[in-house]
Amino acid sequence: MSHTAEIIAVGTELLLGNIVNTNARDISQALSAVGVNVFWHTVVGDNPARLKDALDIARRRADIIITTGGLGPTYDDLTKQTICEAFGRKLVLHQDILDNIRAYFEKNVHMAMPENNVQQAELPEDCTVFGNPVGTAPGCAFETGGIHVLMLPGPPFEMLTMLRDHALPYLRGLSSEVIVSHDIMTFGLGESPMEELLREKMSHMENPSLATYAKPSEVRLRATAKAAGREEAEAMLAPVVEEITALLGDVVYGIDVPGLENVCMDLLKKQGRTFATAESCTGGRIAERITALPGASAVYRGGAVSYWTSVKARVLGVPQEILDTCGAVSEETARAMAEGARTITGAEIAVSVTGVAGPDPDERGVPVGIVYIGLATPDGTFCRPCDFGKRRRDRIQDLAANHAFDVLRRYLTGLPIQIR
Amino acid sequence: MSHTAEIIAVGTELLLGNIVNTNARDISQALSAVGVNVFWHTVVGDNPARLKDALDIARRRADIIITTGGLGPTYDDLTKQTICEAFGRKLVLHQDILDNIRAYFEKNVHMAMPENNVQQAELPEDCTVFGNPVGTAPGCAFETGGIHVLMLPGPPFEMLTMLRDHALPYLRGLSSEVIVSHDIMTFGLGESPMEELLREKMSHMENPSLATYAKPSEVRLRATAKAAGREEAEAMLAPVVEEITALLGDVVYGIDVPGLENVCMDLLKKQGRTFATAESCTGGRIAERITALPGASAVYRGGAVSYWTSVKARVLGVPQEILDTCGAVSEETARAMAEGARTITGAEIAVSVTGVAGPDPDERGVPVGIVYIGLATPDGTFCRPCDFGKRRRDRIQDLAANHAFDVLRRYLTGLPIQIR
Repeated sequence: MSHTAEIIAVGTELLLGNIVNTNARDISQALSAVGVNVFWHTVVGDNPARLKDALDIARRRADIIITTGGLGPTYDDLTKQTICEAFGRKLVLHQDILDNIRAYFEKNVHMAMPENNVQQAELPEDCTVFGNPVGTAPGCAFETGGIHVLMLPGPPFEMLTMLRDHALPYLRGLSSEVIVSHDIMTFGLGESPMEELLREKMSHMENPSLATYAKPSEVRLRATAKAAGREEAEAMLAPVVEEITALLGDVVYGIDVPGLENVCMDLLKKQGRTFATAESCTGGRIAERITALPGASAVYRGGAVSYWTSVKARVLGVPQEILDTCGAVSEETARAMAEGARTITGAEIAVSVTGVAGPDPDERGVPVGIVYIGLATPDGTFCRPCDFGKRRRDRIQDLAANHAFDVLRRYLTGLPIQIR
Repeated sequence: MSHTAEIIAVGTELLLGNIVNTNARDISQALSAVGVNVFWHTVVGDNPARLKDALDIARRRADIIITTGGLGPTYDDLTKQTICEAFGRKLVLHQDILDNIRAYFEKNVHMAMPENNVQQAELPEDCTVFGNPVGTAPGCAFETGGIHVLMLPGPPFEMLTMLRDHALPYLRGLSSEVIVSHDIMTFGLGESPMEELLREKMSHMENPSLATYAKPSEVRLRATAKAAGREEAEAMLAPVVEEITALLGDVVYGIDVPGLENVCMDLLKKQGRTFATAESCTGGRIAERITALPGASAVYRGGAVSYWTSVKARVLGVPQEILDTCGAVSEETARAMAEGARTITGAEIAVSVTGVAGPDPDERGVPVGIVYIGLATPDGTFCRPCDFGKRRRDRIQDLAANHAFDVLRRYLTGLPIQIR
C-alpha cells in the first residue's frame, strides 16, 4: 500500500522570506526514493493556532505528516506541544535525553545547559526517539489512527542527519518495496545535449527510470529501480549504469560520488601523490573544497591565494616579464603560477586558476568570464583556457573551481586535459 | 485594515524535490515590505483536484491568494482554468495578448507560435492583466468577494519581474500600512544567553517587535515596526535599535549588514588598508569569503593556505624551532603565520588561523576544536585562542573563519581582540 505524505515546515522566518525551505526539497527527494508520494508542502509560522489548523488539514489528506522546525529551546518553539494537543498525546520528560543534552553542552559548548533547554528533553509518550548527534533537539515519530507523525529539527544539517539516520529507516519499514538509485556523475556535457543523447533511452524507461539533475556545469544522471528487494533492484540497475556510462564516455567522473573533489582526493590517495593550489579569481575556493574533506592532509599540501599581481610574483615567483607582457590573466601566467605552487610547496602536482570573475573586465580589458586553468606535473605543464561568458561572479568562480578539479581528474586518469 | 496572504506554488517538480521554492521566499520578502502578512505557503502538484482543494482552504483563511506556476502552454498547466472554476469566472481570449505572444515568438524564438500557446492568451474576465516582457505567459489579478487572487508565472526570473512591475504596485494599492525592519548583527553571544538577556524586553514588545535568528556563532536580531508610513516606522525603530545596541555592546558588529566580511571590507576601504591571510585548518575559507565580494581586490592582497607544516615554514617562513617546540597548532605558530603572510604579501594587516578541525586530534594530540587566530599589524601581533569543542569539521572551520573576521573587525575599530 502506497503512502501519501505532507511536509509541514514551522518557522516565521520562512514566511518572512528570510530563508528558503530547502528542508521540504530534501525530504521530498528522500521520500520519492523510498516510494512515498509527497502531495503537499505547507509552511506555517511559530503560531500554535495556525499550526493546529495545518495539522487538522494534513491528517485529513495524508497518512504521513513530517514537520520540520520548532523543536528548539526558545519560547516560540511550540511544535511538540501543539502536535501533542492535536493528536491527544502527553508530553513527557525523557531523563536520558536531558542527560544527553547536558552532556552535549558540557562537552561541545563548554557551558552548563541553559534551563530553557530542558523542554527539548520532553517528547510525546510512546514515541520512537530520533537522536540528534549534531545538535541538542531530538526528533521523534509516533503512529496514531493509521497516521504517522514525524518531527525533525529545522537547521538543515541536523534535519538531514536525522532524516538519513532515523526518519528514512522508519519510513522504509512502512513500505513493502525498496527503491534503489545510483547517480552517474558527469562534468563537461550540458543537460540539453545529454538529454538529446539519451532521449530515446529515457523515454522508453519505466523501471529502472532515468532522470537528470543539472548543477552549474555538472549533470547528475540518476537511475532508479523499484523491486521487492535490494539485490533484485541492483541487478536491474547494473546493466543500465554500465550502458549509460559507456555511452557518455569520459565526461562520467564517478558513480555515487558527491563531487569532483572527492574523486580527485581518492585518485591522489591511491597514487600516493600530493597536490598544491595557486588561486587568483577563485580566491581560495579550490583549497576550501578539498580541505572540507576529512583526511585532506594526505593529498593536499597547501598553496597560495595570489589575488594581487604582486603576490603572483613575490609568493609564486611568476616572472615579472610574463606579467608585464602577457598579463596576469593569461595562459603563460596560469602555467607559471602552477609551477610556482609546485615549487614552493614541494607537491608533485599543482593546479592554478587566473581569470576575470567580474563584475568588471580586468585593467587590461580582458572580459569577464575569461579563465585559464594551469596544471604543473612531473610530465610537464598544461593549461585549459575557458570562456564562461558574462555570468554572475560566484557562478564564474564555481565554474572555474570545477574545471580545475576536472583538469586534475583528467590528468590523474590519463585522459586528455581538454574537454572534447 | 491589514491583509493576510497565502502563497500557493503549483508544480509537481517542487513535490519531487527537483527544485526549491525560492518564489515563496521572494514573494514573502516583498509582501512583508508592503505590510501584507504572509501566514501560509502551500505547494501542490500539477493536479486540478488538489489545486482546487488548496484554493478552497486558502480562501477561508486569507484575503490575498498568490499563485506561482501552471501558466505555461502545456497540457498540465491548469492554474488559470482551476482558479476560474473555483471562483466562478469565465476564461476569455485576449486578442491583444495573443498578438503579443505571436510577436514574442517571432522576435525572440525566431519561430511561429505553436498553437498550444493560444491558451496562454486566455485570462479570467474582468481581470487586471500582468504583462510578461521576459516570457510568454502573462499573469493577472482579480478581486471577488473581498478576496484578491494574483497569478504569477513559475520561472523565477519571470516571476520576479512581474512581481516588481505589476503585483507589488497592485498590492500597495490595497495596504494602508508599511512594515520596516532592521537587523542588528551580533557575533560572540549565543542565542540562549541573548534571549535570557532580552527576554524581558522581547516579551513586552508588540510593535516594534524583536526576533532572533541564529546562525553558527552569530545571532541576527531583527526589529520590525508597522506604521502608516516609512518615516513613522523608522521613528519607532530608531530608539529600539539604539537601546538594544547599547545593551549588547561590542558584540554588535553592524546594522543591516550581510556578514562580518562585509564589515571588514568596508572598514579596510575607509581606512585605506589592505590585508592578507595565512590559513591552515580553515583551508582557504577566509580568502574565499572576502573574494566572494565584488571589489575585494581593493582591500585583499592574497595569502597562503599552509595546510602542511612544511608549507608553514617554506612559504610563510614560520621558524622551524617554533614548529618543533610549540607545534603547528599553537599561539606562537599562529603569530608567526600572520607575520609571515604580512611579509610575503606586503599587506599592512594579516590574519592567520591554525587549529584542529578534526575528525581526529593532530599528531601531537591537540584535541579537535582547538584553534588559534593570529593577527599581525603595525601595532604588533595578537592572538585569540579558541576552543570550539568536538564539533563537525565544517562547523569548526566556519567558526574559525568567523572569529578571524571578528578579530580583524575588533582591531580595525579599536576594540580589544578578545571577546569578554
